[in-house]
Amino acid sequence: MSASLSRPGVAAAVDAAAGDRTPLLDRLHRVRRFTETLVAPLAPEDCVIQTMTETSPTKWHLAHTTWFFERFVLQDHAAGYAPFCEPYYYLFNSYYNTIGPQHCRPNRGLLSRPTVAEVYEYRKVIDDRLDAFLHACDDATFAAVAPVVFLGTQHEQQHQELIVTDIKHTLSTNPLLPAIYPWKKQTQAADAPHAAGWQAFDAGVYAVGVSLPAPGCTSADDWAFDNETPEHRVFLEAFELAERPVTAGEYLQFIEDRGYQRHELWLSLGWATVNQQQWTHPIYWYRSAAGEWMHYTLSGPQPLDPDEPVCHISYYEADAFARWAGGRLPTEFEWEAAARQRGLMNHEKPQGHFADAMRLHPQSLAADDATVNGPFAQLFGDCWEWTSSSYGPYPGFAPLPGALGEYNGKFMCNQYVLRGGSCATPAEHLRVTYRNFFPPESRWQFAGLRLARQRQR
Amino acid sequence: MSASLSRPGVAAAVDAAAGDRTPLLDRLHRVRRFTETLVAPLAPEDCVIQTMTETSPTKWHLAHTTWFFERFVLQDHAAGYAPFCEPYYYLFNSYYNTIGPQHCRPNRGLLSRPTVAEVYEYRKVIDDRLDAFLHACDDATFAAVAPVVFLGTQHEQQHQELIVTDIKHTLSTNPLLPAIYPWKKQTQAADAPHAAGWQAFDAGVYAVGVSLPAPGCTSADDWAFDNETPEHRVFLEAFELAERPVTAGEYLQFIEDRGYQRHELWLSLGWATVNQQQWTHPIYWYRSAAGEWMHYTLSGPQPLDPDEPVCHISYYEADAFARWAGGRLPTEFEWEAAARQRGLMNHEKPQGHFADAMRLHPQSLAADDATVNGPFAQLFGDCWEWTSSSYGPYPGFAPLPGALGEYNGKFMCNQYVLRGGSCATPAEHLRVTYRNFFPPESRWQFAGLRLARQRQR
Amino acid sequence: MSASLSRPGVAAAVDAAAGDRTPLLDRLHRVRRFTETLVAPLAPEDCVIQTMTETSPTKWHLAHTTWFFERFVLQDHAAGYAPFCEPYYYLFNSYYNTIGPQHCRPNRGLLSRPTVAEVYEYRKVIDDRLDAFLHACDDATFAAVAPVVFLGTQHEQQHQELIVTDIKHTLSTNPLLPAIYPWKKQTQAADAPHAAGWQAFDAGVYAVGVSLPAPGCTSADDWAFDNETPEHRVFLEAFELAERPVTAGEYLQFIEDRGYQRHELWLSLGWATVNQQQWTHPIYWYRSAAGEWMHYTLSGPQPLDPDEPVCHISYYEADAFARWAGGRLPTEFEWEAAARQRGLMNHEKPQGHFADAMRLHPQSLAADDATVNGPFAQLFGDCWEWTSSSYGPYPGFAPLPGALGEYNGKFMCNQYVLRGGSCATPAEHLRVTYRNFFPPESRWQFAGLRLARQRQR
Amino acid sequence: MSASLSRPGVAAAVDAAAGDRTPLLDRLHRVRRFTETLVAPLAPEDCVIQTMTETSPTKWHLAHTTWFFERFVLQDHAAGYAPFCEPYYYLFNSYYNTIGPQHCRPNRGLLSRPTVAEVYEYRKVIDDRLDAFLHACDDATFAAVAPVVFLGTQHEQQHQELIVTDIKHTLSTNPLLPAIYPWKKQTQAADAPHAAGWQAFDAGVYAVGVSLPAPGCTSADDWAFDNETPEHRVFLEAFELAERPVTAGEYLQFIEDRGYQRHELWLSLGWATVNQQQWTHPIYWYRSAAGEWMHYTLSGPQPLDPDEPVCHISYYEADAFARWAGGRLPTEFEWEAAARQRGLMNHEKPQGHFADAMRLHPQSLAADDATVNGPFAQLFGDCWEWTSSSYGPYPGFAPLPGALGEYNGKFMCNQYVLRGGSCATPAEHLRVTYRNFFPPESRWQFAGLRLARQRQR
Repeated sequence: MSASLSRPGVAAAVDAAAGDRTPLLDRLHRVRRFTETLVAPLAPEDCVIQTMTETSPTKWHLAHTTWFFERFVLQDHAAGYAPFCEPYYYLFNSYYNTIGPQHCRPNRGLLSRPTVAEVYEYRKVIDDRLDAFLHACDDATFAAVAPVVFLGTQHEQQHQELIVTDIKHTLSTNPLLPAIYPWKKQTQAADAPHAAGWQAFDAGVYAVGVSLPAPGCTSADDWAFDNETPEHRVFLEAFELAERPVTAGEYLQFIEDRGYQRHELWLSLGWATVNQQQWTHPIYWYRSAAGEWMHYTLSGPQPLDPDEPVCHISYYEADAFARWAGGRLPTEFEWEAAARQRGLMNHEKPQGHFADAMRLHPQSLAADDATVNGPFAQLFGDCWEWTSSSYGPYPGFAPLPGALGEYNGKFMCNQYVLRGGSCATPAEHLRVTYRNFFPPESRWQFAGLRLARQRQR
Repeated sequence: MSASLSRPGVAAAVDAAAGDRTPLLDRLHRVRRFTETLVAPLAPEDCVIQTMTETSPTKWHLAHTTWFFERFVLQDHAAGYAPFCEPYYYLFNSYYNTIGPQHCRPNRGLLSRPTVAEVYEYRKVIDDRLDAFLHACDDATFAAVAPVVFLGTQHEQQHQELIVTDIKHTLSTNPLLPAIYPWKKQTQAADAPHAAGWQAFDAGVYAVGVSLPAPGCTSADDWAFDNETPEHRVFLEAFELAERPVTAGEYLQFIEDRGYQRHELWLSLGWATVNQQQWTHPIYWYRSAAGEWMHYTLSGPQPLDPDEPVCHISYYEADAFARWAGGRLPTEFEWEAAARQRGLMNHEKPQGHFADAMRLHPQSLAADDATVNGPFAQLFGDCWEWTSSSYGPYPGFAPLPGALGEYNGKFMCNQYVLRGGSCATPAEHLRVTYRNFFPPESRWQFAGLRLARQRQR
Repeated sequence: MSASLSRPGVAAAVDAAAGDRTPLLDRLHRVRRFTETLVAPLAPEDCVIQTMTETSPTKWHLAHTTWFFERFVLQDHAAGYAPFCEPYYYLFNSYYNTIGPQHCRPNRGLLSRPTVAEVYEYRKVIDDRLDAFLHACDDATFAAVAPVVFLGTQHEQQHQELIVTDIKHTLSTNPLLPAIYPWKKQTQAADAPHAAGWQAFDAGVYAVGVSLPAPGCTSADDWAFDNETPEHRVFLEAFELAERPVTAGEYLQFIEDRGYQRHELWLSLGWATVNQQQWTHPIYWYRSAAGEWMHYTLSGPQPLDPDEPVCHISYYEADAFARWAGGRLPTEFEWEAAARQRGLMNHEKPQGHFADAMRLHPQSLAADDATVNGPFAQLFGDCWEWTSSSYGPYPGFAPLPGALGEYNGKFMCNQYVLRGGSCATPAEHLRVTYRNFFPPESRWQFAGLRLARQRQR
Repeated sequence: MSASLSRPGVAAAVDAAAGDRTPLLDRLHRVRRFTETLVAPLAPEDCVIQTMTETSPTKWHLAHTTWFFERFVLQDHAAGYAPFCEPYYYLFNSYYNTIGPQHCRPNRGLLSRPTVAEVYEYRKVIDDRLDAFLHACDDATFAAVAPVVFLGTQHEQQHQELIVTDIKHTLSTNPLLPAIYPWKKQTQAADAPHAAGWQAFDAGVYAVGVSLPAPGCTSADDWAFDNETPEHRVFLEAFELAERPVTAGEYLQFIEDRGYQRHELWLSLGWATVNQQQWTHPIYWYRSAAGEWMHYTLSGPQPLDPDEPVCHISYYEADAFARWAGGRLPTEFEWEAAARQRGLMNHEKPQGHFADAMRLHPQSLAADDATVNGPFAQLFGDCWEWTSSSYGPYPGFAPLPGALGEYNGKFMCNQYVLRGGSCATPAEHLRVTYRNFFPPESRWQFAGLRLARQRQR
């Protein structure tokens, strides 16, 4: 069994939880503030809209992440707690049936009240109450709530990514194509990215997943979602994994080779979707009046850069491209085993372009600073990478107890795993064992692919 | 032929159009300002939402009424006119196919940009350009555009009513039930409204409708929409019309008599709708936890006043109530003939509770000031009254030439006529010949009914 | 008041009902047998299918018309009657809520049992029971049931027409385009039909509708549906009505003049339907590989005859064609007044091509035998003619008492009146006052149009 | 690596294909006749109906299985072949895009023609042509077509199962609940089935899948679908598998313990489906007026036998039951490894209750003849068993070349694997490596479950 993730920080974390409260509070403040940094450039009107069932209004994200702390920390642990506003328990519960009914998800965009200003007031009041409570509570209480607070920060980081991807979809449907986050055009190297090389791996038993974090863990170094546990063994037949993701330029060749018109490249459900939705290119791509390939970015309309990783494609498109290219998608286990063997050693934080820089778009592979982890370029950050693995439980998986058990496990059906994080993921949120998951038709995430294939002899 | 509407003001109106420009400009300013008065209490977030296909966001109304002037006055008549923002021609065109394609109606609530502030800027710039143009143009041009400007003010008044009814629907779907327009509780007389008496009318030929306004007409006294023309004759068998509208208290008796559960009271389409939509009362009504009948108003949740006219009911409900009560809906011709004979003499302006007072709810019939026209209480204002007449063309009807011909005629199918105006109609917008029309399932307008019956012997 | 329909046969009919039972039984047998004559050419498989919600399987029509007699005659009037098969009361009730719940209409095509043979057995048993009961009952009972039996025969005739129109739709969706009812190609005159002349009518009061039939009436000469009553007066402004229906050749000119692409010709709902359904010609029309205009008929695919009346068009298409042609649809009152004044004198039976000949397609206007009533060609039979009149109650209309009151009245909403009968209507079923009605998007009936216009000076 | 499936028959099969043609022709005749045996008790009307998109009319199955031979054997290999009826190539192509367009799947129930008799004629003519061709062709041609003919028989066996499950759904929606296949009530042992024991398996590497059959293979002993290949290794953590399937009686306890009302037992998609579809028990179950649990079977309504395996449940229900019972579904690899180690040795044919006996319902576990394979009762036949494995490609999977490559691979998305066959599967069709697959909401197959769990210590 190779490349095991040892977890040395656990004992320290438990101590920390019961002892110095500063690191957790610092983390809490840092995460809460970054949410507001992301939202700052938006107008109140932007924060209300819901352009499809899968997205939520920014205002809802701002309130729901606050509700999470109010409901699971203050309500559950602060004696005699009175809610800020009773109906918010209904309005901002996402999907926790254990706790109570929820406002209908597709109707989140039908609520003008509370206004954005009122939601900011809600955030401020809960932040203050949380601070007061976390300072004043006794050690036993703190030890009990610290992991929930920590989970709340992980949760809010996930919603930071969704704030970005949801507002991108929202604004993209507006014919005015507004630019919200300006960023400098990347300086580009003269040369195109090298042809992708392949890394080869032998058949054998590999370790994937991670041990359960210790109870009370509040250290990002040792923590994981329940769906990443337990660590276990898989047998992989010999395979190869590409050293870089597929580029927009390569994807254009697929389009020009009539990829969207050739049924034999597609899964049956994918082909049905292509025809029903009349897909002919990734979402956000279009041709200018002059025939140039453009795409909508959060910095406004931009010419397509052939050297950036292709993104905003569905599982269906990733799978069809891979078939066209003579490869296939990797399984999530191949991806993780490869990363653990060569891309990312134990205890290392992934290198990559993440949301922290607020350049909310993948960078060109041709750029000087193309981030590498071992032999792999852009394995982390920039774009999530679709895998061929259906999202399911690891052997021996057990969800968290209580309402928080609804966090991950109940979604393990008809979704596919993505790995590696994106330009909209906060850097410290990501791990090599991290499993993201979306239904196969989803296109509004920053999701692309990296090719795999059976080992060539 | 009785009760003909003569049209003495026409010649004067034409003179006015070519001569003194002040009355038209005053009217224009007055109408434009009242729109903004209505919108003032709303938050930007309120103005973006669209809660059903039939409603539009406030922001859209603000922009569309401005677009009407820009497109049909400035663009068509001001030489070399450059649009304020080219995409607005697409975004804010409602349904004028003659002019070009339109943004998809059910998606009006998916646009955060332009923001409310940007739409106000748009209003201001177009108002200024319109003023400058209307002052500077030569007399022939003014004569040509004056009727279009006048139509634009009529059009904006219609949208004032829709701003009110649409925002009421929008806010009603929010569990917080916000109060936007506060108003004083009406002082009520001790006594309930008198049992409705009946006015009887002989069989015979009656005149309905109105002659075509003169070309260039810009006087509210002489003007009418094309759908009210031409004046013509109808034969009415002897009938009777109730002296007051049906009240909420009477409607409650219908509910308590299992009106919504008795198929024999309903049209087939109505019964299907009742069951599919699970209607058990008018929209906006509900029972409090204590079992009291309440309803949502723009002044927030209120106890139901049994003496106010029932409103927010569909044609189906009006028709079922009438059948339950042993009567029927009047035809639009009975309604108009009755009003012209007894309710409202020629050249009179209707009396009633209209939007101008910004008390955006019908008043109790028991109130001291219940408005009468002849023997009829609340014939005008408070609530529109459903008639049994399908909305169709009068004999010899011809729509306006050009794009404005799409204003009315093309909607003459599967809609039913309402008469008399409501608490959300600007007073000067209404006439005895005025025909409003909505599909029979519509409930979000201030619409109730007045009973009719064959003449009793 | 002109052209009143006097009703001399009423007293005789009442006598007949209480006296000689033979005429009613003969009529009953004749009608029942003609249903089976119509169905004879079909395979069992044909009789099961339902290709849209609006149509019903042949098998259902065969059973439902039988159910009508079993339920309203035997069950209601034969003491101690035991149903043939209890579940049939549920399965074959169409829409009579008074009697009980019904099998879901859109699911009528999901029932393979009872088989066709079992339904024929059902028919035979009920026919026998009915005969026995009608012979054996006392005079008072016979007087009470005779009008219901008579209504049952009228009802079955309506379903005879629906059997034809429904099976035509059913078979038309099959790429094999089967020919079921062979008929001889019509001998055609050398000449095209004359340009349509116009018949002019003065403004004035006209009588329409018919007096209530006497209680107990069982004579086709004196009988009418409740929706045709009472006779009453209407005022018609001067108008003209075309002497013949619009032909397929004329309709082709409309198509070739881009009629289906020009929004200005269409009602708003019609234009939406044209675009959503992608209509470019009447249902059943298509172009052969060689580019020839063909249409599917119950005698199989046929070249389109330009001289036959256009049919299988919706109200929307009839209305758009009329606008394109510079005319309009007549109201149902204009149609009836014209027919009563010139087309069809009192007491006459309409002349025309009806279902009895089993040539289930309109005949060419150029044929020698084009049927005339007064100056009007094909006013009756061949094709129903859309009118602009929304289907509503006549002044003083009262539905039949009891469950049979659901027959007509509850459908008086969002449907339009058609007049004159078609090639699928049994001849004796039709009257000059007869009102047929369908929703405006309906196309599967044999429905065309005849132009009207305001009187030319 | 344990329990490898060796494939000794391959060479012999190739010889056979090129040599004696009798075995293949015998197999062909036998399979073709059994289809007709299954259909014999149905009326023509039964064979036309389609009660949901996922099912097909019997008539379509009869024709499509014939089309398979006509299209892939005669059309592709018989020189100058002229189709029996050109439009059948369109009507009876299921989903082979490589070959051409297809009649719309949800509309299969809208075709009355060809009639059942005509489809039988089609079968007979193609059978004759096939016989003539297979006898007359040269050896090289025979060697080329033999595997296609063989695949055609496998294909027809799959449709035999679908004929049964589809007609069961079709007839179940008919309130008359017809009995089609009578069978003797099973003699039941006095005792209930033993509490399920568990078989334990060690962690380790296991072999699953099967080697590619040799080109030209036409022996059922050596043949497999492409989706079962290639044989490969998986690592399984230690697990246990129940010795018998879950019974209806156990499932009733789940229902009575409010299983359908407890969100915490369900996958999120499952919970949504339960609520939208208002599921409260397996499809076909209902309570009699007397409150007794009944279910519809192809032998008509029957009291529920608590000792028979539960079936007609979706993946969601199987998964929720397993969670309620404190277990989980096995993966398909656990299932296969267990069967290969203990249930079924190499070269053995599975024992079980299959379709051949035409008792088209699972048998009671309490019956004397409960079929065992090693320690496992009813591992094969009776009911398919849902596994937790999403249907995907094995490492190195390659679909068949050409149109037949569309047979399996393109469906590898959002479906779950079932193992073991059912009472509607022909016995010789099943193998230990056989992978069936359906979307997780599917309920109309004979599908139940067998529990698994992590190894207890």
